[in-house]
Amino acid sequence: MAVSSLRCIQSLGFSSRGRAFFPVGDCSRANARKSMNCRLVFASAKNSDRDLCVESKVETLLDSVKWDDKGLAVAIAQNIDTGAILMQGFVNRDALATTISSRKATFYSRSRSSLWTKGETSKNFINVHDIFLDCDRDSIIYLGKPDGPTCHTGSETCYYTSVNDFLEHKQIEGSRQALTTLYSLESTISQRKAELAVPQHVKPSWTKRLLLDSKFLCSKIREEADELCRTIEENEHGTRTASEMGDVLYHAMVLLALKDVKVEDVLDVLRHRFSQSGIEEKRSRGQQNEA
Amino acid sequence: MAVSSLRCIQSLGFSSRGRAFFPVGDCSRANARKSMNCRLVFASAKNSDRDLCVESKVETLLDSVKWDDKGLAVAIAQNIDTGAILMQGFVNRDALATTISSRKATFYSRSRSSLWTKGETSKNFINVHDIFLDCDRDSIIYLGKPDGPTCHTGSETCYYTSVNDFLEHKQIEGSRQALTTLYSLESTISQRKAELAVPQHVKPSWTKRLLLDSKFLCSKIREEADELCRTIEENEHGTRTASEMGDVLYHAMVLLALKDVKVEDVLDVLRHRFSQSGIEEKRSRGQQNEA
Repeated sequence: MAVSSLRCIQSLGFSSRGRAFFPVGDCSRANARKSMNCRLVFASAKNSDRDLCVESKVETLLDSVKWDDKGLAVAIAQNIDTGAILMQGFVNRDALATTISSRKATFYSRSRSSLWTKGETSKNFINVHDIFLDCDRDSIIYLGKPDGPTCHTGSETCYYTSVNDFLEHKQIEGSRQALTTLYSLESTISQRKAELAVPQHVKPSWTKRLLLDSKFLCSKIREEADELCRTIEENEHGTRTASEMGDVLYHAMVLLALKDVKVEDVLDVLRHRFSQSGIEEKRSRGQQNEA
Repeated sequence: MAVSSLRCIQSLGFSSRGRAFFPVGDCSRANARKSMNCRLVFASAKNSDRDLCVESKVETLLDSVKWDDKGLAVAIAQNIDTGAILMQGFVNRDALATTISSRKATFYSRSRSSLWTKGETSKNFINVHDIFLDCDRDSIIYLGKPDGPTCHTGSETCYYTSVNDFLEHKQIEGSRQALTTLYSLESTISQRKAELAVPQHVKPSWTKRLLLDSKFLCSKIREEADELCRTIEENEHGTRTASEMGDVLYHAMVLLALKDVKVEDVLDVLRHRFSQSGIEEKRSRGQQNEA
């Protein structure tokens, strides 16, 4: 791993609406060589024109961040498949540069005054697929896939304390993850499944009935898919389509629970298909072969 | 709107694993009346036992936050249905207390040294359904539903600048929202639909074929639902279930695009069903009536 020292001095443009933007300028070797004075870690020691060009652009990007009086910005790690907010930390210039080059979510520890890469101890790295800056350029999303639970407590995410639960006097510690709608529904279905193993808790419910009778569940999935199709065949209103799609999703998720498959697994499949030229291209090729 | 002054002096417990937790103590009027010295805004002026109890618990909660040297913590607003990170700001004690009571995402403006509620100018409030604290108690999620675009630029979220796009020399300003897998797929399908209106851009693709032939699309949706069911009927491996569910989702999302229905609309339907006693209870009741 090479450490190159360079700094791009490039003025940043600002649009009339107050948004900063990156200049998409020339990245010639000469231009890049104007650079000096900034540490930036790169995975490759090769100083080809392309490397210098990338280094130059990374420096421009780092210059565009609105660092606070301590040289920091907020960085939020988000699961690319589920959207779950995994953790939040702070980054300085070096931490962000390291994340860009290593693709492992890296932060600046304010208590230890040093860089740290999430997973360096636990091996539960967060593999960063893309990074997004906000309109003010002082807040960053690391959009990535975690190798395992993110929280040092072993929890999937660091956000497991619900204010609603606390105010309603429920058990507070590790009470409930901050789940969005789809994962909240998945969690409910999973609870119903768990309750089936404890006979005294078996209150009748639709989900339990579906879980106990896979033949009936399958008939419902086929029926709901048919009803979804009929909203287009019979030119029904979009609200009806949304409702029928809700039914398809819910019943299909009960089947996923029965098969111990997570929604996240399904999204992982979709992401890989789309990043490998996409379902549509794959299907399109298949179709051409058939033709 | 009443402003009550109270402060709960309650010691906080810490578990052996380093997680702070809230004491679930007695909330009698006497206990609450020990409180003094902290401004907390409540929507109701009624000082019933229950109000005092809630006030007392809110104070305990506010005491448990690890405020920084400026009295601030990070607050991240997240869309409860899509999981999109809408914006990030900072909160002080008053901002968090105001959000708890008003259920509108409220922040502390470091530049103006004052509270501000997102939407007070634009009317695009973020309606907070729950609030989550992280393991360190210095980072907060406002999980809520936005009334409209969150960013002052009119963008759905403030995170629309992709580092990948910048480094790959693509158009940078407003280039691409930080979309997770499902919404990235939705965006791709939407682009294919838009391309159909511009004949010179019509490269063949599977999605376009489906969009152009709704009869064929519906036959695919029914077929994929059937294949999903067969993974349980024929006891296939979970990886096959995940793959077939991916197919169901993708094809159903093409139908949603044709009907101009967003995935977010579907999740909104599901959230409302579950918060109104749930699909399963509703269905269960229906079932009992049938029986």
